[in-house]
Amino acid sequence: MQVNKQTLTVAIVGAGVIGCSWAAVWVRAGHRVAIFDSDISVLEGIRDRLLRNLRDSVGDPQASLAALEAGVVIHSTLEDAVAAADLVHESVAEKVEVKRELFERLDRVSKPEAILASSTSAIPLSQFTEGLLNRHRCVIVHPATPPHTLPATEVVPAPWTDAAVVERTLSLLEEVGQSPVLVKKDHPGFAMNRLQGALLIEMFRLIEAGVVTAADADKLVTDGFALRWAVVGPLQAIDLNADGGLEEYLARYGDIYDRMAMERHETERFVSPSLARELVKQFRDQLPLEQLEAKRSWRDQRIAKLKRLLAKKDSDR
Amino acid sequence: MQVNKQTLTVAIVGAGVIGCSWAAVWVRAGHRVAIFDSDISVLEGIRDRLLRNLRDSVGDPQASLAALEAGVVIHSTLEDAVAAADLVHESVAEKVEVKRELFERLDRVSKPEAILASSTSAIPLSQFTEGLLNRHRCVIVHPATPPHTLPATEVVPAPWTDAAVVERTLSLLEEVGQSPVLVKKDHPGFAMNRLQGALLIEMFRLIEAGVVTAADADKLVTDGFALRWAVVGPLQAIDLNADGGLEEYLARYGDIYDRMAMERHETERFVSPSLARELVKQFRDQLPLEQLEAKRSWRDQRIAKLKRLLAKKDSDR
Ligand SMILES: NC(=O)c1ccc[n+]([C@@H]2O[C@H](COP(=O)([O-])OP(=O)(O)OC[C@H]3O[C@@H](n4cnc5c(N)ncnc54)[C@H](O)[C@@H]3O)[C@@H](O)[C@H]2O)c1
Ligand SMILES: NC(=O)c1ccc[n+]([C@@H]2O[C@H](COP(=O)([O-])OP(=O)(O)OC[C@H]3O[C@@H](n4cnc5c(N)ncnc54)[C@H](O)[C@@H]3O)[C@@H](O)[C@H]2O)c1
Repeated sequence: MQVNKQTLTVAIVGAGVIGCSWAAVWVRAGHRVAIFDSDISVLEGIRDRLLRNLRDSVGDPQASLAALEAGVVIHSTLEDAVAAADLVHESVAEKVEVKRELFERLDRVSKPEAILASSTSAIPLSQFTEGLLNRHRCVIVHPATPPHTLPATEVVPAPWTDAAVVERTLSLLEEVGQSPVLVKKDHPGFAMNRLQGALLIEMFRLIEAGVVTAADADKLVTDGFALRWAVVGPLQAIDLNADGGLEEYLARYGDIYDRMAMERHETERFVSPSLARELVKQFRDQLPLEQLEAKRSWRDQRIAKLKRLLAKKDSDR
Repeated sequence: MQVNKQTLTVAIVGAGVIGCSWAAVWVRAGHRVAIFDSDISVLEGIRDRLLRNLRDSVGDPQASLAALEAGVVIHSTLEDAVAAADLVHESVAEKVEVKRELFERLDRVSKPEAILASSTSAIPLSQFTEGLLNRHRCVIVHPATPPHTLPATEVVPAPWTDAAVVERTLSLLEEVGQSPVLVKKDHPGFAMNRLQGALLIEMFRLIEAGVVTAADADKLVTDGFALRWAVVGPLQAIDLNADGGLEEYLARYGDIYDRMAMERHETERFVSPSLARELVKQFRDQLPLEQLEAKRSWRDQRIAKLKRLLAKKDSDR
């Protein structure tokens, strides 16, 4: 929505799976990217990895190469890489000491107004930014893997992160085509990995109990829920699964999930009555029951198109 | 794979959301479908609902109408609907007494060799088929909602279900384009709803704890995991998320999920060491580490195509 879209300089610190993917996100949107990795053997491979990421997401090999040539510089010192940066993406090893030491350096060598964003999967931001002079500009920007392919990104502030920094981070991510979500509290595992973790734990339990094979557990998701959830989220999905919407769905099937919650020694039901009421209200405000059937058709037509695309062999691109 | 693909007669008993969706699956594959519902007011709406399901999945309105006219008969008695059936799909209310009474009748009025399939979401098959004369031909065929759109289907036998009935059910479902999975044990909630339930419980907990809004919880899945899982299952996905594959992924991130398992008062870790070893072996046998990077490119290119499709407005069909 910004009128003068500014070209930014983004520094990528740590150029592994995630760093080279973030680099692709910014380069393809027309920004300048400066890359640093402390491992010299990694530096050599960056160009290839980044070019592959650009090609896989942009499609056009020529345009990818041109974007790479025009927009990316690989640096051999941290100072050089971050000197001009408006935003620094830290994507180094998932170790608190490594991040703490790095953020201390970043806080000193970057422009004081630069946003310092960490890709950490699960380390609370407070554990490695507390003592910094400009800690108000630090924020977690945790991507789905890999971010050049998957837009979902969680943005998690520390108690001392500036509201303006959070706002700017969210809007920059939107501008480059990501789908940022604000995680309002520093919750263990944030939100995304907790969702993934809940599913993975259940998959492992089912395999261990001899209920399904690992390949079949994957297949139940790939050929089922994933197609649906790519079109409507898991909550909206259950709202469409009974003619009376979420309210009827919970009345009919809630006890299946209540039993699961109980197995986990949870004292609460699957969903608290107050949250259930609130969600039913939200869903009915958005989609009156008389429009449910039309929404289902919309969902089904979109999923049918996804299936046709996925059924194509890679040779018939 | 069958050489003489036979035209079957399939009876749909209970013509609500699921029954009318099963009907579409069989009709569009060229089989004859006989429908019955005990509620007369439902009978009137069946044609429209079924036609919509055919159109949404087949795409072509003319062909859909022709398939409906040629293949579907709506009956006003159960006996007439099931008389010629090779397979009966029961999709009536999720109540054990209703299913028990119905299966007793079905066992009497159907051809003795007909497969009796229940769509039940969570009632163990043993609770409503035990006393039947021909209980060996009963099996649960539990679809993802709706089956005319989502192929994943779990097939759950009772202890007394014939192995041949299970085999035939699996292969018929394959033939009509579903993606059937054998659930080897009658586990509470089977497999599919347990996977969905695990995710939904976690979503509700995050919303209740004020970590994310409901809309954002849906978005994290829709714009992230779902796109990935439509291309590679959740287990295969984590195998691709570290350069050293699943083994390295678990070493790096396993503790995030171990902590989640512990919160649930589970005594076990997220994944047992023996299952982890077995899965690492399976994944490396299928995909040697040197091919991991190429597989990631394949994944990313496919997801990029899905995203382009989903980004199209409904008007640019
Ligand atoms: N792989 C995933 O699924 C995933 C998903 C989301 C977030 N993350 C997070 O992203 C971060 C990076 O993960 P990854 O998978 O890209 O790891 P990776 O091992 O592929 O890459 C890390 C890179 O950082 C470099 N590095 C280490 N210490 C450094 C330092 N002090 N200065 C500069 N470079 C340094 C390493 O040489 C390596 O190239 C981690 O915090 C991880 O938790 C990973
Ligand atoms: N909706 C879902 O998400 C879903 C998913 C998978 C499985 N299922 C299962 O499928 C079955 C049907 O669910 P639904 O969502 O289609 O419900 P629904 O209420 O939409 O349809 C049920 C239909 O069965 C009819 N019926 C009831 N008793 C009958 C009887 N004795 N004989 C004939 N018809 C009878 C009703 O009139 C109604 O039309 C249930 O067992 C349910 O657990 C539902």
